[in-house]
Amino acid sequence: MFKSVLIANRGEIALRIQRACRRLGLRTIVVHSEPDREALYVRHADQALCIGPAATAQSYLNQKAILFAAEVSGAEAVHPGYGFLSENAGFAEQVEAAGLTFIGPTAASMRVMGDKIAAKRAMRAAGVPCVPGPDAALTEDLDAVRAAAREIGYPVILKAAGGGGGRGMRVVESEGGLRDALLLTREEARRAFGNSEIYVEKFLGRPRHVEIQVIADTHGDAVWLGSRDCSLQRRHQKVIEEAPAPLIGDARVREIGERCAEACRQIGYRGVGTFEFLVEDDAFYFIEMNTRLQVEHPVTEMTTGIDLVEAQIRVAQGGRLPFRQDDIACHGHAFECRINAEDPDNFVPSPGVIDTWQMPGGPGVRIDSHASAGYRVSSYYDSLLGKLIVHGATRDVALARLQVALDEARIEGIATNLPLHRRLVADPEFIRGGVSIHHLETKLRRSGQP
Amino acid sequence: MFKSVLIANRGEIALRIQRACRRLGLRTIVVHSEPDREALYVRHADQALCIGPAATAQSYLNQKAILFAAEVSGAEAVHPGYGFLSENAGFAEQVEAAGLTFIGPTAASMRVMGDKIAAKRAMRAAGVPCVPGPDAALTEDLDAVRAAAREIGYPVILKAAGGGGGRGMRVVESEGGLRDALLLTREEARRAFGNSEIYVEKFLGRPRHVEIQVIADTHGDAVWLGSRDCSLQRRHQKVIEEAPAPLIGDARVREIGERCAEACRQIGYRGVGTFEFLVEDDAFYFIEMNTRLQVEHPVTEMTTGIDLVEAQIRVAQGGRLPFRQDDIACHGHAFECRINAEDPDNFVPSPGVIDTWQMPGGPGVRIDSHASAGYRVSSYYDSLLGKLIVHGATRDVALARLQVALDEARIEGIATNLPLHRRLVADPEFIRGGVSIHHLETKLRRSGQP
Repeated sequence: MFKSVLIANRGEIALRIQRACRRLGLRTIVVHSEPDREALYVRHADQALCIGPAATAQSYLNQKAILFAAEVSGAEAVHPGYGFLSENAGFAEQVEAAGLTFIGPTAASMRVMGDKIAAKRAMRAAGVPCVPGPDAALTEDLDAVRAAAREIGYPVILKAAGGGGGRGMRVVESEGGLRDALLLTREEARRAFGNSEIYVEKFLGRPRHVEIQVIADTHGDAVWLGSRDCSLQRRHQKVIEEAPAPLIGDARVREIGERCAEACRQIGYRGVGTFEFLVEDDAFYFIEMNTRLQVEHPVTEMTTGIDLVEAQIRVAQGGRLPFRQDDIACHGHAFECRINAEDPDNFVPSPGVIDTWQMPGGPGVRIDSHASAGYRVSSYYDSLLGKLIVHGATRDVALARLQVALDEARIEGIATNLPLHRRLVADPEFIRGGVSIHHLETKLRRSGQP
Repeated sequence: MFKSVLIANRGEIALRIQRACRRLGLRTIVVHSEPDREALYVRHADQALCIGPAATAQSYLNQKAILFAAEVSGAEAVHPGYGFLSENAGFAEQVEAAGLTFIGPTAASMRVMGDKIAAKRAMRAAGVPCVPGPDAALTEDLDAVRAAAREIGYPVILKAAGGGGGRGMRVVESEGGLRDALLLTREEARRAFGNSEIYVEKFLGRPRHVEIQVIADTHGDAVWLGSRDCSLQRRHQKVIEEAPAPLIGDARVREIGERCAEACRQIGYRGVGTFEFLVEDDAFYFIEMNTRLQVEHPVTEMTTGIDLVEAQIRVAQGGRLPFRQDDIACHGHAFECRINAEDPDNFVPSPGVIDTWQMPGGPGVRIDSHASAGYRVSSYYDSLLGKLIVHGATRDVALARLQVALDEARIEGIATNLPLHRRLVADPEFIRGGVSIHHLETKLRRSGQP
């Protein structure tokens, strides 16, 4: 069992991982870029190593520097967080080749799930419902694409097999537009992902984004930990998430959850992961699996009482899952607002120094953030300053608490999206629950925002 | 049902009450002294009225000014918080005479519980175990005191009937010292509380302070909400509290809890309240009932999932308790550290401006505080800056989280007791659980602290 963890990330998630490690009595080693040297988690680390300048290619994506830091610090395990190298199978392999534990799934699992076609095939095999469409690449053969699209029925969506995060996809309304769309998407995919494979799927008009959290150990056990709804998105970036997903019956969620857990067992998955679905009415359509911790993991923690990062570390240490499926109960409802350093009108990042940082508190309120008064927000990294998470006995209670908490929050010196959050939690459709993934963008367009 | 609440308090509890009111959609009216005009809860109030200068006698204890503020603001209810006027039966009567709802028990309940002898009599009648000793004043008759003390067995303790908070009491080791002790205590009681009545009780050598939280509605229902241990005290001021109380069997706590709830029904109690006990081994001895919200109420909220202030407001509105005894389940363990602006070596208050205010966060961490960077700590009020509360699935997990959280907390510009808290949570006896009420003072004395 490892006793030290190198945290190969930055920002709020580096602090979050460090908290779990310290609570478990593990030595924490932090690698950081030059501008991050004053960060809270750097100060609290047992050992901190500067691995490069601000640019991520030279620091947080610099695999050699990270592996070298692990070697010189005597780290026994590496936690990749989310983003950066967290879904890089090659990095995971190098970590393990160096005799260290990669806190995440095997490289093989990451490769299967990183390839959207292979993932869909594996999910179909495990009984997880997928979006209608052939689970094979159709790149070279326009006739095959045309036949598949006809069978699915228009509108369809073309997707790059190597894509993700909303990039490399194009909606086709009718057969007339298919040929051009295929050529364009294929060329984009080749340039963006080095893989020109394309597949075709049914396009859903007003789906919700619903996901299932899972965790699996190395002894063949896997459990699912409830649902989340992350439909409130702008340009595929989630803005507010909640757990459980509203308007879906417990029996239906359980059925899908059990299939996800079964899929984990079938593919020999280990660690935490998330099955993402598009949902229309009661129909679930698998879209992808994220083979890592998610930004929005706290809403699941608030409803299940399980510390996901701690559980993730324990299974990485080879331990058995500390709970069985029957032990998992979801209590109440939780929301998470991602607080970004960005102009609330045009979403342009807003780097600079935070003068005032006042976060709400009280019952049901949790803050996950590395920021504080005096913190300098760098323009080199994403704009996430932290997460405001609230819990309540019911969705209504949680939402009322969120409204009060957002009202109390005060950040000055830089622009933030707090005003957007305050508008969103007062939006009657969001309050009702179950908005589609297009809701936020439609709303923004109506008010003339990009 | 009232729709507006005047908060007749300041500091963290004013903010705490305001959060509950706002979450329930109630209009909040805040009264404040001149130096408190910049406070967070003043800024967030629907209406704020300055009722006087810094000195509490002219502001937070100024009943006329508060009642006048209620009248001009159209407040329909008054929440007294804790301290100040919260246990002042005369104030409660004036509030109700003005046609407003006092968010607390009736003046009659407060009077019974404010008189320690009457309280003990009521508790005995309800089957709540009390400290051995006659439940009658023995002021005038030395022989009667001597006979009672002999029956109880030395050492005994003399207590002022009107006392509380650790004032007006004296331990007597043997019969030789009884006469002088009685005269001294009686004279002190007369001067301090305007009531020279004295009673005698068995003196417990190494008891723990254990309390039971209750809530009762105006329809005759009362439930108990678990136990708390608040043994870590200095000069009768609680420093760290936890829930549930360790080392006491569930069956024993349930038995005592049920008697407390029964006592509430018998005396027609309404609102929240706390039965305080000294506990030696498995024996509970009632010492007093606090007829108000306690500073340490959050540890009960963290383990039961119940918002006590919200429930308190609902029953004050005449509503039925929103849960029955069978609905109450305690999950995990919680600790609360009172963060004070005071020198950690000599406990002298440390007023001034806070330069740095960095509070921990993450899973299981709750902050209840009105302070922030730039906040000026006044020398006019108690030194409580806020409370750090943590929850975990077990006592060990909660304690480990507390240790990490205290390590992360950083307050600069004024002195605080954070260093004391960090020492205490590393103390092997505290970690083991179940220290007596003398533990902290003994520990401090050993290290040469006052």
